[in-house]
Amino acid sequence: MGDDQSFLREALELARANIETGGRPFGAVVVRDGEIVGRGVNEILATHDPTAHAELMAIRDSSRKLGTANLSGCAVYASGHPCPMCLAAMRLAGVREVTYAYTNEDGAPFGLSTAEVYADLAKPFSEQSMKIRHVPIRLDSAPDLYGVWKRGQLPST
Amino acid sequence: MGDDQSFLREALELARANIETGGRPFGAVVVRDGEIVGRGVNEILATHDPTAHAELMAIRDSSRKLGTANLSGCAVYASGHPCPMCLAAMRLAGVREVTYAYTNEDGAPFGLSTAEVYADLAKPFSEQSMKIRHVPIRLDSAPDLYGVWKRGQLPST
Repeated sequence: MGDDQSFLREALELARANIETGGRPFGAVVVRDGEIVGRGVNEILATHDPTAHAELMAIRDSSRKLGTANLSGCAVYASGHPCPMCLAAMRLAGVREVTYAYTNEDGAPFGLSTAEVYADLAKPFSEQSMKIRHVPIRLDSAPDLYGVWKRGQLPST
Repeated sequence: MGDDQSFLREALELARANIETGGRPFGAVVVRDGEIVGRGVNEILATHDPTAHAELMAIRDSSRKLGTANLSGCAVYASGHPCPMCLAAMRLAGVREVTYAYTNEDGAPFGLSTAEVYADLAKPFSEQSMKIRHVPIRLDSAPDLYGVWKRGQLPST
């Protein structure tokens, strides 16, 4: 638990430092084998990139440094409760566990909770606020894109 | 529906072109006011970045070009069913609707479905495959990070 606290404290220090530069109060680190392999802070205000959340930036930093998209066995320490995008990103990358300090309830009074987004995304696709449509068109030149990819070849066109 | 089909076809063409360069069969475009404002392809193999999905790359491209993290009113056209990370990213960015051509069922035989990840993330946090822990520590120097951020000032330390 000692290491746990120090890694989480590092995420909080990153969040604190990000406030000083005008950013949002979020920081995260990725840990593998007891060492920090990547760091991130929320860079939305600086970059206009809506995906530049602390956890996503830390995952990108880690994958760049480790040279792999596979973060199996890694742990993430985040200053605040991960949003659905970041939670899914961790899950996809194989992250083993995530630990956070500030809850969505802590963030709610400041507009920093994603609880409503979680609730919306938990609904059936047809009931979510964003419209999700399936239009099953195919390219004449490659009607079986996935098969082409799997076979490692495109048909001559 | 004519425009719809042409935008979706563009996403499929991007996926097709990405296969030719050795990438995964995914492409996406972001549309605002009837014009494509951003494009993306899956760049995981090239960059080792597990978040480099086509839709996320298209969102990043759009926000860079438009100079805003707010993609309200935009529509996304994706070659395949968006994964939970990309769906949440669109939702967070204010995307109005997303249209896709290939389903998770189409992708399953090729290992290109994220249906299992959706199912896992739909479970209560305590039952998901990734461990999610809350450890409510605070920094002595800034015990109220969110309040500090909201007030636009850090306590002198």
